[in-house]
Amino acid sequence: MQKSISVSAPASVSNLGCGFDILGFALEKPQDKMTVRNNNLNKLRIKSQNTNYPVPEDPTKNVASVAIQAMLNKLNIQQGFDIEIDKQIKPGSGIGSSAASAAGAIFAVNELLQRPFKKKQLIQFAMVGETIASGCEHADNVAPCILGGITLIRSYKPIDIIPIDAPGKLFCVILHPKIEIKTSEAREILKKDVLLTDAVKQWGNVAGLITGLLKEDYELIGRSLDDYIIEPQRSKLIPAYDMLKATALNAGALGCNISGSGPSVFALTKGYDAANKVMDEMRKQYQNENIDFDIFVSSVNQTGVKISES
Amino acid sequence: MQKSISVSAPASVSNLGCGFDILGFALEKPQDKMTVRNNNLNKLRIKSQNTNYPVPEDPTKNVASVAIQAMLNKLNIQQGFDIEIDKQIKPGSGIGSSAASAAGAIFAVNELLQRPFKKKQLIQFAMVGETIASGCEHADNVAPCILGGITLIRSYKPIDIIPIDAPGKLFCVILHPKIEIKTSEAREILKKDVLLTDAVKQWGNVAGLITGLLKEDYELIGRSLDDYIIEPQRSKLIPAYDMLKATALNAGALGCNISGSGPSVFALTKGYDAANKVMDEMRKQYQNENIDFDIFVSSVNQTGVKISES
Repeated sequence: MQKSISVSAPASVSNLGCGFDILGFALEKPQDKMTVRNNNLNKLRIKSQNTNYPVPEDPTKNVASVAIQAMLNKLNIQQGFDIEIDKQIKPGSGIGSSAASAAGAIFAVNELLQRPFKKKQLIQFAMVGETIASGCEHADNVAPCILGGITLIRSYKPIDIIPIDAPGKLFCVILHPKIEIKTSEAREILKKDVLLTDAVKQWGNVAGLITGLLKEDYELIGRSLDDYIIEPQRSKLIPAYDMLKATALNAGALGCNISGSGPSVFALTKGYDAANKVMDEMRKQYQNENIDFDIFVSSVNQTGVKISES
Repeated sequence: MQKSISVSAPASVSNLGCGFDILGFALEKPQDKMTVRNNNLNKLRIKSQNTNYPVPEDPTKNVASVAIQAMLNKLNIQQGFDIEIDKQIKPGSGIGSSAASAAGAIFAVNELLQRPFKKKQLIQFAMVGETIASGCEHADNVAPCILGGITLIRSYKPIDIIPIDAPGKLFCVILHPKIEIKTSEAREILKKDVLLTDAVKQWGNVAGLITGLLKEDYELIGRSLDDYIIEPQRSKLIPAYDMLKATALNAGALGCNISGSGPSVFALTKGYDAANKVMDEMRKQYQNENIDFDIFVSSVNQTGVKISES
């Protein structure tokens, strides 16, 4: 049995505007790095390597070890692992940091155990890890992080994950305001009921977005990204959100919305040059706010979590 | 200027399970037949030809003349037309009878006026006619009736109609219990609010259905047809609905749901033989009810409203 493996697990954007809780896609960067080794102690041990983004070392509080434990329970085996996490995706930034920890760990352990599960089956275990971060099992970050590309979670019970082909020229700008929004808190502010008329508008856009993605109709993707239900409630948590979105759209973005539960904001573009132009305008706009932020361009990551080359 | 034209306008199935108010498709049969002639009276006159399915002859109460008037108003012209309607789609049956009247009339007049509008633009006028039948402007029957195939109404304001390719082997069984459900009444019973959790399940299915249609994945189409919001409220208006649906699914239907606001029920199948098998089982089941009904198989009509050959 292989003793050690290093993997990288990408950041991801969930919700995709209208597709709250059902859609997500993987980013080319940033990626968490992790090394997982067998130990003979029958214990899961976490080591947090990046002092800038420390992760909990208590194995009952870390999404990675909780996910691994769920897999070990399913297999009904006892095996200890040391998990070194070099966290590169800032926790709480809204681009699937916890999902990457869970996905990377579960992928690594599955490799060390000689693949008792297929890649798609790993999602269920990573979801168990996600409960620690968000208070509920959700798959819209772990699914794209594991599989790459764009993923649809059609159903949770039973889980039904469907890969959606990503158009080749789709690029993404991520602006991350360095404020913290906890996923669990961003969920709590959501009203439990929605108007049927708003729900109809929302699923019209969901249908338009899927059609746009599968037919590579970038204009249709753009006009389908609007979210009538979640964005109006959550956007107030993000300083100067409306202005930022208007700037992105004016600069030629297909659409702009909240990544996951925020605070990161994503804008989609057709092509790399367009993404850079949008990034420049968003940066210029946000420099007027008194908030530290990161901004970068990424393509859609088609691979998902993988064994590291080094 | 041409004096007279005969057209046929197909029945259609709207809602398509999860796609309430946004999806519909045209049927190969039945089709309304209409003949429209210029008159020199500056009046719209309706003649109802089928005594089995009479239509209102008051031009302010007939969807066809109301739709035509909306077009004439837009063009700002005065022109009289005699409209003879040979109604073949039973009014109130839930397969777009009023939409076919409106679509056929507006298509015929557009031809006689030498096509001031493109086919897609006719939808807005036919929608005005639809308000008479349902109490609100909706396009999920008129759009497929005019364009053929499967149509998505992504948005109403502004109107945004997107054709969705219909998989080649998609067939439909229609069972029409001969009871009357008015569209306006079927709308009134719907709750104005829905649970966010149900809405998420619904748009997961909408996304799955569109993916299934565009990728010709019949299994995915089938498992995406479930409707968590409308069907539970409306199915009680249709006698023995649950039993009928179970029968269709057991006989191999991909899915089964309410056509429009009912009372017709549709079942989708992969292939013509499967449709006939499902039809036989549904017929056998419904013969146990003390209700007169029609049942038939149709493919998806790819053409929509057209000039009659005769």
